Amino acid sequence: MDLARLQAVIEQTYGERDRARGVPSTVAWLCEELGELAQAVRKGSADEQRHEFADVLAWVASLANQVGVDLTDAIERYAAGCPRCSAMPCACA
Amino acid sequence: MDLARLQAVIEQTYGERDRARGVPSTVAWLCEELGELAQAVRKGSADEQRHEFADVLAWVASLANQVGVDLTDAIERYAAGCPRCSAMPCACA
Repeated sequence: MDLARLQAVIEQTYGERDRARGVPSTVAWLCEELGELAQAVRKGSADEQRHEFADVLAWVASLANQVGVDLTDAIERYAAGCPRCSAMPCACA
Repeated sequence: MDLARLQAVIEQTYGERDRARGVPSTVAWLCEELGELAQAVRKGSADEQRHEFADVLAWVASLANQVGVDLTDAIERYAAGCPRCSAMPCACA
């Protein structure tokens, strides 16, 4: 699955409910999931970590859907490496 | 660019520096970027929103690289819709 497919699946699966709650609630849920990811990378198993990364990306996708951002397009910002110095590895001080 | 490419680019661009700082510092940076995204979806322009979504995904990629998680594999969790009820749209109460 790629990011475009993730955005489509999240829209079909949770779109109506997430939109009804609105952007601030989606930000709140994303924060909650980020907390779970922070705990998983500190002391979770590999399975728990994979699970929490997926949940964070799912909420990022829901938020992107609500504000009309295409994540595949957005990450082009990093296509050439560092967006500031355009180097790979980054040469910024 | 897909998620696998994002992880590879972030590794090449920032891998050494991010690993030297370590996982807790990467979590801290990710939180900082999430704050910037929260502000951008509240009052930012479309360009600012795209920028902040990219930065959040870049830090998620860096964190995933450091703990050895393949994000493309992780989001398979949502391939069939809701991971709890396996429905699309979600039928959970």
